[in-house]
Parts: sequence; structure tokens; C-alpha cells
Amino acid sequence: MAIVVHHLNSSRSQRVLWLLEELEQPYEVIHYQRDSDTNLAPPELKNAHPLGKSPVIEDDGRVISESGAIIQYLCERHGGSDWLPRAGTDEYVSHLEWMQFGESSFFVPVMLKLFLARLGEAAAPVQPRIDEQLSAHIDFMESGIGDNLHFVGDGWTAADVLMSFPAEIALLQGYGEGHPKISRFVEKVHSRPAWQRARKKGGAYFVW
Amino acid sequence: MAIVVHHLNSSRSQRVLWLLEELEQPYEVIHYQRDSDTNLAPPELKNAHPLGKSPVIEDDGRVISESGAIIQYLCERHGGSDWLPRAGTDEYVSHLEWMQFGESSFFVPVMLKLFLARLGEAAAPVQPRIDEQLSAHIDFMESGIGDNLHFVGDGWTAADVLMSFPAEIALLQGYGEGHPKISRFVEKVHSRPAWQRARKKGGAYFVW
Repeated sequence: MAIVVHHLNSSRSQRVLWLLEELEQPYEVIHYQRDSDTNLAPPELKNAHPLGKSPVIEDDGRVISESGAIIQYLCERHGGSDWLPRAGTDEYVSHLEWMQFGESSFFVPVMLKLFLARLGEAAAPVQPRIDEQLSAHIDFMESGIGDNLHFVGDGWTAADVLMSFPAEIALLQGYGEGHPKISRFVEKVHSRPAWQRARKKGGAYFVW
Repeated sequence: MAIVVHHLNSSRSQRVLWLLEELEQPYEVIHYQRDSDTNLAPPELKNAHPLGKSPVIEDDGRVISESGAIIQYLCERHGGSDWLPRAGTDEYVSHLEWMQFGESSFFVPVMLKLFLARLGEAAAPVQPRIDEQLSAHIDFMESGIGDNLHFVGDGWTAADVLMSFPAEIALLQGYGEGHPKISRFVEKVHSRPAWQRARKKGGAYFVW
């Protein structure tokens, strides 16, 4: 049975579709649309997983959540071993770090900024700290991308898949100009035929 | 050379000390203290890692950041294979999920709550949404702990180490009473001799 992806538009689940296209795996997309007023995920997502978040996949009778876990799982289980560095190498350790960074460290200032934007001027007392944190994280990403435009080693890895969303968020937040590697990395991702096929299947995706 | 841990008091790095005690690895602690006014990490941590966060470890000439990456690395490299489920099992997939959940999904509402507390009444428009999210994540953790008080399978795993901090945060945020498994899980963690040795080496650690 094909893998099922519970996919929210303009969200981190877009990269799961991308990876599935790269791995040439059959999959079915169940679409969910953000609320046009609040931009929040619809409550129906709670039928897929108690936390009501996307992505969630179903495979072989099992529900799997958390982007980093899904990406790692798909590479290991569905023909993506080339996308994972070999255990025991330096690249393997860097890979572990980016697979965590992209979903943990990075998202704290991003989510704070999004929520605080809804408070307007009232958020002023904590705004400078958040902006400083977000800049520091984006600078760190810029410094982590190699000259070959990959996060780890010389070729594509699952870390590039995971980090594509943070890189896109950095551009959407206006950090493209001072961060040429992030900009070129996102262009390189978007030029992949597999990414373009996934983009069509995923529906509305920010400005891209 | 012994592993070096850049350790911030009352922070997620306490569990790295715990794991090192469980693995009976020699290690050196470099202590950093939170600012007594702001509760923020001191700027000296930026000498250990550009993002100025803890934990960061040094091992074999390499600096490693991100709690989830550090815990996974230590288990794989330093005799903790018993703390990791075997690849290909259901437990392995659950383990991947919790190793991400504890540092990504869970920390978004936690950090939002901490930052918003500094805004007082001005945060009222977004407060109900954050509280609802935090409760949902803590309920999800409660449902994830087995009757044997482990997150994955029947014995201790790296996921228990990683999840110990979210579980402690849940208690500190007042969610202990309605969540008996989280409460008992934290008690079980704190009763480990290795945890108690790590607690002495780590210095001030919340109320424990």
C-alpha cells in the first residue's frame, strides 16, 4: 500500500513530498488547508494525529509524526541510504546536528517572531532579543552551507531535505540579501525535478 | 582525553551529565551560570559555540551541539548501544519520533510561554492558544509513557534521557497533578544513582 502523507499547504510537510519524489516512492496526499484568517492548521488534522500537526505519514499500518523522524525513516526504509552519511564518519555527526537544529533550535525564534507579530507594539520589550536570536541562527546556517551548497559533505543528504524549510523561512523573513549561500541553496533545491513534481502535488506553497 | 561538557545550570544539559554517568565515561564539566536578572545564558557560552547555547560537548577534537545529536552520538560512540533500539523495529521508529518531539514540537509552546510571561497582560491575545498547545503536548507525553514508565519499549533508552527534561518542565509548569505517569517517570529518573551523581556535578538544578 502506498505511503499516505497528511499534508498542510505552505508548511514543513512540503519537503516530505520532495523526498518521496526523490526516492521514487508511490504516495497519496491528503490535503489540509490553513485557515485563511488565522493561518492555523484546520482541526481535521487531529484525526490524523493527536497534536493536529503536519506532516504526519502512514506507512505499513503505522502513523509517524515529527518531520525529522519521518525524513530519517523514509531514507532508511524506502531506498534513501544514499541520503544518509555512513555511521562513524565526521559527516555522520554533522548530519545528526543539522537534523536536530532544523527542527529545534531554529524554530524557537521563528515561532516567537510569528506569535509576537500578532501582538504588535505590545511585544516591543522582547522583540530585540528574538530578532537577535533569529539573525544568529540564520548566520549560523549560512556558515554551515559548503561551497558546493550542501549542509553535509559533497552531495545531497537528508539534512539538505530537512534544512530546506528553514532556508526558505530565512528568505521569507527577508534574510536573503545578506545570506548568499542560503539563497543559492534554496535555488538549487527548487531546481530539482523531484522538488518541482512535489510542488505541483502539494498545492499552494508560500511564494514559490 | 575526557569528554568536555559546556554546562549551563538548570538547563537541558543536565541530562547529558546523567547519560555520561550511566555510560561510566570520564568527563569534565565547564560551568556557566544563568544571569540572575534575565535568566539568560552568559555570553561566554559563545566561545564554546556560535549560538551561545548549552549543552555543547567536545570530544576527540570535535565540538558537537544540539541535545538530541549529543545524546545519540554519546550512545553510539561511547558504549550506549543498549540505550538505542535496534534498527528496523517498531521501537526504533518510536524512538526517532521522541528524539525529535522532545526538542522540537515540545519546546515551541514552552518557549512561547516563557517569553510571553515577560510581557504580562500584553500577551493576553495569544495566551489561550499557547496554553492550549502546551496542555496538548503534555497530554501527548502522558499518553506516550508506558505502564513500565518508559517512553519506548520495556527498558531505558536514549529517548527517556532526552524526554526527562520535557517531563521536568511539565512538572515545573504545574502539570504534575493531572499527569501521574509524567510525575512517576521523573521520580524514576531522579532515583537513578547515575542521575544523582550527575546532579551533584551539575550544580543548581531547578527545585531538584
